[in-house]
Amino acid sequence: MSARENAQKIITAALEAAMPDTAVRAALQEADFSQGKLILIAAGKAGWQMAKAAWDQLGSRIDGGVVVTKYDHSKGPLGNLVIYEAGHPVPDANSFRATQAAIDAVSGLSRQDTVLFLLSGGGSALFEKPLIPEEDLNRLTKELLSCGADIVEMNTIRKRLSAVKGGRFAQLCAPAKVFAIVLSDILGDPLDMIASGPAYPDSSTCEDALRIARKYGLTLTQQMQQLLAQETPKTLDNVQTHITGSVRQLCIAAKKACEEFGYETNILTDRLCCTARDAGVFLGNIAGYYAGSGRKLAFLAGGETVVRLTGKGVGGRNQEVALAGAEYIAGLNAALFSIGSDGTDGPTDAAGGYVDGTTRDVLKTQGISISDVLQNNDAYHALERCGGLIKTGATGTNVNDLSVLLLEA
Amino acid sequence: MSARENAQKIITAALEAAMPDTAVRAALQEADFSQGKLILIAAGKAGWQMAKAAWDQLGSRIDGGVVVTKYDHSKGPLGNLVIYEAGHPVPDANSFRATQAAIDAVSGLSRQDTVLFLLSGGGSALFEKPLIPEEDLNRLTKELLSCGADIVEMNTIRKRLSAVKGGRFAQLCAPAKVFAIVLSDILGDPLDMIASGPAYPDSSTCEDALRIARKYGLTLTQQMQQLLAQETPKTLDNVQTHITGSVRQLCIAAKKACEEFGYETNILTDRLCCTARDAGVFLGNIAGYYAGSGRKLAFLAGGETVVRLTGKGVGGRNQEVALAGAEYIAGLNAALFSIGSDGTDGPTDAAGGYVDGTTRDVLKTQGISISDVLQNNDAYHALERCGGLIKTGATGTNVNDLSVLLLEA
Repeated sequence: MSARENAQKIITAALEAAMPDTAVRAALQEADFSQGKLILIAAGKAGWQMAKAAWDQLGSRIDGGVVVTKYDHSKGPLGNLVIYEAGHPVPDANSFRATQAAIDAVSGLSRQDTVLFLLSGGGSALFEKPLIPEEDLNRLTKELLSCGADIVEMNTIRKRLSAVKGGRFAQLCAPAKVFAIVLSDILGDPLDMIASGPAYPDSSTCEDALRIARKYGLTLTQQMQQLLAQETPKTLDNVQTHITGSVRQLCIAAKKACEEFGYETNILTDRLCCTARDAGVFLGNIAGYYAGSGRKLAFLAGGETVVRLTGKGVGGRNQEVALAGAEYIAGLNAALFSIGSDGTDGPTDAAGGYVDGTTRDVLKTQGISISDVLQNNDAYHALERCGGLIKTGATGTNVNDLSVLLLEA
Repeated sequence: MSARENAQKIITAALEAAMPDTAVRAALQEADFSQGKLILIAAGKAGWQMAKAAWDQLGSRIDGGVVVTKYDHSKGPLGNLVIYEAGHPVPDANSFRATQAAIDAVSGLSRQDTVLFLLSGGGSALFEKPLIPEEDLNRLTKELLSCGADIVEMNTIRKRLSAVKGGRFAQLCAPAKVFAIVLSDILGDPLDMIASGPAYPDSSTCEDALRIARKYGLTLTQQMQQLLAQETPKTLDNVQTHITGSVRQLCIAAKKACEEFGYETNILTDRLCCTARDAGVFLGNIAGYYAGSGRKLAFLAGGETVVRLTGKGVGGRNQEVALAGAEYIAGLNAALFSIGSDGTDGPTDAAGGYVDGTTRDVLKTQGISISDVLQNNDAYHALERCGGLIKTGATGTNVNDLSVLLLEA
C-alpha cells in the first residue's frame, strides 16, 4: 500500500476517534448509572451530537434533562430532553433561559442521583447565568476586551460574576454526583478553561481577581466588588471528569493506526503551537536524521500552529506545515501530512496538505519554488499542482490539528 | 544532583567528543598503517590540532607530510611535518604553495603506502591549486558571487577549475590509499561539500556546470570552457573516509551522558535548521506533553537554527532557543539548554542559554516578559538576569549547536 493510502487511513482513524459521538460512547463505558435518577445536561457547540450519542446508548434510563447548543446546531428532538438553541459567542436570553432550565433540572436531587454533564467548546457563552444585570456584564466585558486583559485574566473576573462557571454548576448539582464528559478544544486540556469550567475546581483566587481589577482600573459596581470577593470552589468531591475527543485522542488514534501499518510510532507533542513553517522544517529535520536508518518510523504532533503572514496567497496552517517540510524530505522515502480536524484549513476547501520525497522536484519541474510559495502564504495552489491537497469536507468535530511524518524502512 | 549540574556535565561530555583531537584519536583506532609509507596531509582551520593528535598517536611512524591552516592557527612545529599558514576565506600564495607541497609529498607513492588526510572547515580556501591563472579565478569568483548563484552552483563550477577539489586530490594520491578523517562543519555532513571534497567522489556533472554557466551568462575564457567539460571523479576506490567530530558526534556524546544520568534519551535530529524561537517552542511543546509521565526523559536536537531579527537587543540563536522554550516549560520539572559548540553564541561572550521550569516566573517577578524580550532579540540580558547564561569560553571546535530538553520523573 502506498504512503498516500496509509495517510488517508490514518486520517480517517484519527478523525473517527475524535468525533463527539465516539468520544461520548467511549467515556460512557466507564460510567455506572445503576442507582438513582439520571439527568442529562449538555452544553456547547457539540451539545446536540454528544446528547444524541448518550441518548442512543442510555435511552429511557435518562430521567430528563436539557441540551443547549448554538443556533442551527440542533438536529431534532431527543426523547424527553428539552433542547435550546442560543447565542454564541455572545450569550443571549436563550442562553440564560436554557441555563436556568438546567439548574432547575438538577435541583433537589439526592446523593444517589447522577448528572451526566456533556460539555464542549462554546459552553462559556451558551451555558451562563450571570449574577449581575446583563447590561453591567456587557459593559464590563467590553472594558476587559479594550484594556488588554488576557483570556486567563478575563475568565478570573467573569467566573466570579456567574452562577455556573468556575465549578459552581457542580455545586448546584450536589449532593448528586456529576459525571462530566468534556470534549476539549483547548490545547493542553485546561479543564478550568474549557467552557469556563462549570464542573471543575477553579484555580484562580479572589486575590487574583482583585489584583486584575486594580491592574486595569476596572469600573466595578458595589455588587461586582462583593462578588469578586466570593471564592469559587477549590475542591469538588461530587465530580468525576472524563476528558475526551481532544487532540490527545486524535494523536493516540493516529498512533494506533500507524502501528497497525507497522510504523514504530512516537507522539512528539499534543500541544504544538509554533509557527506552521517552522513546524514543517523541524519535522523535515527529524526525517533527515532518521532516513536510511532501516526503521519504519512515524512521528506525530498534535496542536495548532500559527501562520506567519508574509504574503497574500491562499493556504492554511496545515498546508504550510506540509509544504515547508517538503523541502527537507526531498529525495527521502518519507511522507509528511497535516490536517485540521474540522476539515477546514484556513480559508480553503482543504483539510490540509500531503507531501512526500518527490514533492519538491515535482514542483520544481513546474517552475515552482517552495520558499517563494511559503513567502507568499500560497501553499494551497502549490499543493493543488502536485496533488497534495487533502479534502475531507466538514468532519463534525473540532479538536485542533494533527501532523504526521512517515519514514519507510 | 541538580538539572543545572547535569546540564553542565552533558555539555562538557558532548564538547569533549567533538574536539578535533578526540575525533582524530577515535578515528585512528580503526586505521591500519602497518604497511608502506605513511604521509600526513592536514588542511583546514583545525589542521594543526588534528595533525597534533595524529602525531601524538603515530609519531615516528609518519614518514612526512604537510599541514596547512589559517594564519595564527599553528601552535608550533610537529616532528618532520612542514607547516604552512595561509589565507582564509580567500586563498593566497601560501595556500597554493602549501597545496603544491602536499601534492609533491603524495606523488610517486606505491599501492602499499597511505596518505592520512585530515580535513576540516576552511579547507576550500586553504587547500587549493587552481588550474587557471589566479586573476581569472578571482574575476570569476566575483562574477559568481554577484550573479546570485548558490553555494552548490558555485562549487560545481569551482571544483572543475581546481587540481585538488572534487575528489581530484585523492586521484593524485593513487595508487596509494587515502585514509581521510573529516571534521564536519556542514549540517548533514555532505562530504563533497566540506572543503570542496578533495578526497570524495563529486556528485556534480559537466552538464550541471555548463547549465550553470549558461544560466548566469558567465564570462568564460577558452581554458575555463575546456575545464568545465572535464569530468571530476565519480568513484574513488582508494579512499576510506571517516566523518567525525560532526554535530552528530556532539549529539551521540550528549546522548551517552544523558543516559549515564538516567535519562531515557531520544535524538530528534542532527540537522535542525528552523528559526531559533520556534525550535524553542517546539521543544517546550514536547516537554508539555511528556511532563508528568513519570519518565525521566531527554530529547536532543543538533543543528544550527536561524535568528529572525525583529529587534535590536543582544543575543544568539542558542539563547533564543532556550528563552523561547522557557515560556512552555514554566511550572514543569524540566530544563532546556542550547549551546554553540564553538563557545560563542551570536555576538556575545556566552555559548548559549539554560532555562528551567522556574525561569518564566523568575523573570516575571523582575517585570521581564519573555515575548517582549524575544521580540527585541534581547535574550542575553534576560538570561543574565536569571542566571541562565552558559559560558564556556572558546572551545577549540566548531560543529554547530546542541539543544537539550531534560524532563525529570
